[in-house]
Amino acid sequence: MELLEGRICALAALQAGRRKFEALLVRQGIKDDSIRDLLDAAAARGVTVRKVREEALDAQAHGKTHGGVLAIAEPLPPAVLPATLDFVLFLDGVDDGRNLGYALRTAEAFGVQAVILRRRAWDFDGGDVSRASSGAYERLPVVIADAAPQGLALVGCMAGASKTIYDEDLTRPIALAIGGEKRGLSAAVRDQCVSRVTIPTKPGAPSLSLTHAAAVAMAEVARQRRNPQLPTPKSQ
Amino acid sequence: MELLEGRICALAALQAGRRKFEALLVRQGIKDDSIRDLLDAAAARGVTVRKVREEALDAQAHGKTHGGVLAIAEPLPPAVLPATLDFVLFLDGVDDGRNLGYALRTAEAFGVQAVILRRRAWDFDGGDVSRASSGAYERLPVVIADAAPQGLALVGCMAGASKTIYDEDLTRPIALAIGGEKRGLSAAVRDQCVSRVTIPTKPGAPSLSLTHAAAVAMAEVARQRRNPQLPTPKSQ
Repeated sequence: MELLEGRICALAALQAGRRKFEALLVRQGIKDDSIRDLLDAAAARGVTVRKVREEALDAQAHGKTHGGVLAIAEPLPPAVLPATLDFVLFLDGVDDGRNLGYALRTAEAFGVQAVILRRRAWDFDGGDVSRASSGAYERLPVVIADAAPQGLALVGCMAGASKTIYDEDLTRPIALAIGGEKRGLSAAVRDQCVSRVTIPTKPGAPSLSLTHAAAVAMAEVARQRRNPQLPTPKSQ
Repeated sequence: MELLEGRICALAALQAGRRKFEALLVRQGIKDDSIRDLLDAAAARGVTVRKVREEALDAQAHGKTHGGVLAIAEPLPPAVLPATLDFVLFLDGVDDGRNLGYALRTAEAFGVQAVILRRRAWDFDGGDVSRASSGAYERLPVVIADAAPQGLALVGCMAGASKTIYDEDLTRPIALAIGGEKRGLSAAVRDQCVSRVTIPTKPGAPSLSLTHAAAVAMAEVARQRRNPQLPTPKSQ
């Protein structure tokens, strides 16, 4: 079982409907009207709601920031890649569920359709991932694979590439590969890339972290694909 | 006293020379040659090096990732803003030392010269900030203030602004204001901004986190200022 802590993450899981729930726990004393969206989503899914004392929530939760809401659910079933893809994030070396969650949140914001993780096994706590992702993990397909899906140009972000990401055509269907902080992109992934690009940074400064490099690269994809005729969406 | 855990952060602090050190602790059994840079920097600063057992390091450190190196030092003295500034990051609502550290690391990578924090008091653990920053905190001036330095155009990133950051001239001397995740930019800061811009994201997706919004915005400043004639620096 995984714990989905906090309203955003529990609501995202209920609305996405991909998990089996054991129960939704809410703190005694919370007014129903203030969590109407959660109660409605639980009712629509047939999920039991239990009102429990704050101490009982604290005892189960990992942190103190659940805000009185905790869903208990089975891990997500394996994700299925959408049939049509033109923007995939390929993470090679993410080593921490919280960082994965941050990357998923930003990936969703910039229009990524699926995230590929290159690793041997899934050893993240799905509750941690979901919480850090602000619920994006409940919606965005995340699969483990060794290669990018066919039909996508694999573009690798890496230190020392001679071409910058700003000089690369990112409007074609692509999988954007970002390496981990310790080792960068693995040789196996580098060899698959049709292009290797760098995010220019100040010489001598520390490199970008994995999630920040991913954020900047994904924003550049979205920038290049932006249609100035569309109204500006609401965003941070 | 603050604990600077790990080689990168301890070395950055020794090289920057802004702190007073009590000691540099290194794990017994580490070969001197493998930490020559640290030993040389400690000798140059007159800092005592003590070889201690691993258990003693673990007992003092916050995490398990110190890698056998721990510096004990006084907090950084108040930072002084450089006289000439053309790129400042103004963070309004960062609430976590680790996130501040990530923002500093990325700020240094994109050429930010100083970081302004808008808050009443400094309540971060400087060791946490320094570690998450990969040492950038030791080098980059960080000051607490209510307003951007004079002579800089204050550009605020905020949800719902009608202009995108890509349509803003970021090549002039600017202070880039980024708001916290819960409340965004405060009214006091919004009122000071000469321009308000948004980072376009997918409608309906969660907003960007503070550090990712900052990374994307700082990268855009660097992109607009980039001189394609210069050689591409080594970077992530």
